[in-house]
Amino acid sequence: MPTVPAARLMDGTALARRTVEETAARAAEITRRTGTAPCLATVLVGEDPASVTYVRMKRARCEKAGIRSRHMELPAATSTEELVATLTGLSQDSEVNGILLQHPVGPHIDERAAFEAIAPEKDVDGVTMTSFAAMSFGLPGFESCTPGGIMRLLDAYDVNPSGKRAVVVGRSAILGKPAGMLLLARDATVTYCHSRTTGLSEIVAEADILVAAVGRPRFIRGEDIKPGAVVIDAGYNPGNVGDVDFDTAAERASLITPVPGGVGPMTIAVLLAQTVDAAERQLGL
Amino acid sequence: MPTVPAARLMDGTALARRTVEETAARAAEITRRTGTAPCLATVLVGEDPASVTYVRMKRARCEKAGIRSRHMELPAATSTEELVATLTGLSQDSEVNGILLQHPVGPHIDERAAFEAIAPEKDVDGVTMTSFAAMSFGLPGFESCTPGGIMRLLDAYDVNPSGKRAVVVGRSAILGKPAGMLLLARDATVTYCHSRTTGLSEIVAEADILVAAVGRPRFIRGEDIKPGAVVIDAGYNPGNVGDVDFDTAAERASLITPVPGGVGPMTIAVLLAQTVDAAERQLGL
Repeated sequence: MPTVPAARLMDGTALARRTVEETAARAAEITRRTGTAPCLATVLVGEDPASVTYVRMKRARCEKAGIRSRHMELPAATSTEELVATLTGLSQDSEVNGILLQHPVGPHIDERAAFEAIAPEKDVDGVTMTSFAAMSFGLPGFESCTPGGIMRLLDAYDVNPSGKRAVVVGRSAILGKPAGMLLLARDATVTYCHSRTTGLSEIVAEADILVAAVGRPRFIRGEDIKPGAVVIDAGYNPGNVGDVDFDTAAERASLITPVPGGVGPMTIAVLLAQTVDAAERQLGL
Repeated sequence: MPTVPAARLMDGTALARRTVEETAARAAEITRRTGTAPCLATVLVGEDPASVTYVRMKRARCEKAGIRSRHMELPAATSTEELVATLTGLSQDSEVNGILLQHPVGPHIDERAAFEAIAPEKDVDGVTMTSFAAMSFGLPGFESCTPGGIMRLLDAYDVNPSGKRAVVVGRSAILGKPAGMLLLARDATVTYCHSRTTGLSEIVAEADILVAAVGRPRFIRGEDIKPGAVVIDAGYNPGNVGDVDFDTAAERASLITPVPGGVGPMTIAVLLAQTVDAAERQLGL
């Protein structure tokens, strides 16, 4: 018999639905007051099937929430300069409130240069250096969508990170690093682990809040998880498998995100919410 | 009898001297080739005695290293707008290679707005959001000077952070946060501790590399330090006292920075080195 209760699920699908409903209401209010719906520009380079699917899904969610999307498809052979020019143009276009560059963009393109062509006030996907620093310093700005979704999940389940040990496994620029910075800004004691970390099991075992963002299926084993921990699985691997071994982890965690239906749905919800935030700020509403 | 050898000192004064000598040689080469010495603009708001002293010291070091300094003293009542205008002007002035805004700048000024008026390519003090993100992402840019000095000290004493547990106590925007990000970029497993951290002693005890950057005299006790750890004391409190209780820490550490003569001298050395870096980049040398 387990000595701790089985984990409660953190229902990202339900929270995302509520977030999108609130966002749709705000979008409708903008449309009512200005005669024009908020607009997200989506930029796709090439025809990678996964990227095509992601962008289509994001645009469909926009439409459902009363957000216009303006879609630009660029050929796979697009140069960094051309992509930068496109994004600069959208940054200057007053009809565009937010900009999403679907990534990865292909190895011949300088992705960082492309991201930096997005004006920070339209960076609703939270990919620019300015957005990262704003997250890190607790300044106004846009959050990377997945880390932003993680924080909303924690809030929805009354998990206050202050004074807690948070362990982030993974250090990518759009997921692990900003997730750790957002947790630090909320007063967690944050540890970053990654491929060079030695003694990962012992560090994971210290986590009151664990964020798995490493992209390796079932990489985190339940036996390493501290009883009662909050487990956030931001992994999404082939076969709908997360970075955490769900069955064993759920026996020890107090709260855990399922895959799918945990962090995933929140990512798009935050994108939509931040697009409406951007429109409100730009319109002075 | 101690079971580990007493710590070796990490001699920041000597390393700073070598760094400044190399910098002076590079500055002389620029002067020889272009007829003009590299130029650091220093901006001081008000007459805070410590700030006046710091700026004077930095300018004296510049002069000794063959770097011109252009000093601007603004009255204490300077507004954010006026300060931003001054810094924007220096950012656009082709005769200025680097810009230092001495801070803190007084409570009525929006310090972040002032920092952001410094062009990233002249941000030789590493205070802008762009510089922070560049440090975090391992991109070209300028480092905050004290964290940059810490990394140079580690390199000089052959401390490779890769795979090590690094604990940073303190999370300021110009010291703790960037120090952690630079260590993470060098593949350390990094933990950020701060005023809300619970169980600090246990976390400090895990550190292979400890960075104390909290601004509280003798806050870190030697008994908490892991035998053989590398201890970097970035604190500088009244009475020439660091954040680490030196005498007890030196009994357990393998390497330790003294206060004064450890991290402190490196801060100005990095400022000078980065000013010459900026000049070289701007001149295409």
